[in-house]
Amino acid sequence: MSVLGTLVLLRHGQSITNAEGRFTGWADVALTAHGEKQAVAAAELLARDGLVPDAVHTSVLRRSIRTADILLQELDRSWIPVHRTWRLNERQYGALTGRVKCEVRREAGPEQYRAWRRSLTVAPGPLPADALARLRADPRYAALRGGGLPAVESLADMIARVAPYWADVPAGQLRSGRRVLVVAHGNALRALIAVLDRLTEQEVEDLNIPTGAPLRYDFDRALRPVVRGGGYLDPDSARTAAATVATEGQA
Amino acid sequence: MSVLGTLVLLRHGQSITNAEGRFTGWADVALTAHGEKQAVAAAELLARDGLVPDAVHTSVLRRSIRTADILLQELDRSWIPVHRTWRLNERQYGALTGRVKCEVRREAGPEQYRAWRRSLTVAPGPLPADALARLRADPRYAALRGGGLPAVESLADMIARVAPYWADVPAGQLRSGRRVLVVAHGNALRALIAVLDRLTEQEVEDLNIPTGAPLRYDFDRALRPVVRGGGYLDPDSARTAAATVATEGQA
Repeated sequence: MSVLGTLVLLRHGQSITNAEGRFTGWADVALTAHGEKQAVAAAELLARDGLVPDAVHTSVLRRSIRTADILLQELDRSWIPVHRTWRLNERQYGALTGRVKCEVRREAGPEQYRAWRRSLTVAPGPLPADALARLRADPRYAALRGGGLPAVESLADMIARVAPYWADVPAGQLRSGRRVLVVAHGNALRALIAVLDRLTEQEVEDLNIPTGAPLRYDFDRALRPVVRGGGYLDPDSARTAAATVATEGQA
Repeated sequence: MSVLGTLVLLRHGQSITNAEGRFTGWADVALTAHGEKQAVAAAELLARDGLVPDAVHTSVLRRSIRTADILLQELDRSWIPVHRTWRLNERQYGALTGRVKCEVRREAGPEQYRAWRRSLTVAPGPLPADALARLRADPRYAALRGGGLPAVESLADMIARVAPYWADVPAGQLRSGRRVLVVAHGNALRALIAVLDRLTEQEVEDLNIPTGAPLRYDFDRALRPVVRGGGYLDPDSARTAAATVATEGQA
């Protein structure tokens, strides 16, 4: 089968709130030193497999921007075009933003906690009005003024915002033969993979994306994945890390 | 007079070859630790004067890319669009690339040295064939294949490549009310200023741009500079540093 193009998906390296076990959402937190090292290690995997990108996409949150910047410096590709869009932001986690996951699980119970984190359609409560007002005043979200900025999102809401970006920009670049890298967030990548692989609701619930683990998709000429689910460049460590993501908050 | 928009020009912070007193041209060298500090200091001046940019332009050389990245991190503007183009590269210095300036001055004499560095139309010898072949194979210059990559440039050649980019991209952004930052190189900024201020040949020869010193231009509705020559945000230190640039190689 002739391969049209190759996409690599990468969740940003460990952030400060990842390390603290908190829901982060649209809070704009920095990488930890470990997270920066993960970006370097991801670059080494891309170089090893001949996947140095021609074009990069990130969210407008610094943990994905910085991960991409470090990776491109390592690959001597700081000069390539980088597209930054709120459509690749992490899920707007509403009232859970900043909360410690194990405390939320204890208070709300494991069923509710699981539904908030993993289900396709369940969303927690909205962001408090003052926090929402601060986001609306942030110039990076100027295009979302006038009610467009979500106070909370389900994963289905995320699919609705990620899918048009995917169709318009990275998919177009793949069709013109470019190697594309998307550096984004756990739930943004779940949403994107739901589109790429046409996941069922159960598959969406069971999908966990570890930080810093490059995931490769090759596409055929109809822009369908050659292998459903793609392939991690370092499958053993990605499997272990995904299992850890699945049990977050249970400590 | 109503001001249409504001442009800030910034030469990258000190590079390794700046510190060594060498001609750099298209050699892709890193910033020194001092150069990184200059980027932070430039960010502080922009913040002080309310000049946080909406859009940024750099060359495809890492010293300008890294200067812009550090500055944007300081200003919490890593999410804004950054445009990278070979048209803002430093002058292609041909046979002088990598040479120590004071040695070149001693060998060629002060008149020839001055003409190579400062004149509008005089160019040194071309880049050796092997170095030119390496640049032609570099994917960042893929658009210049088939003879488009210059083996050497005069400042007039640079004006011819900078002017169309200026007219197409940053000028259009200024017309739509954005605050624009250009992070580039000594001679790329001389070329751009030659266009903005319609400099005479003598004025081009006498213009020296220090590293890390933000230079502000306000424009009227016809996109003419309100004040010819613009204004440095820190005029005293910029004047001292420009005088140092003028006497480079005379030590």
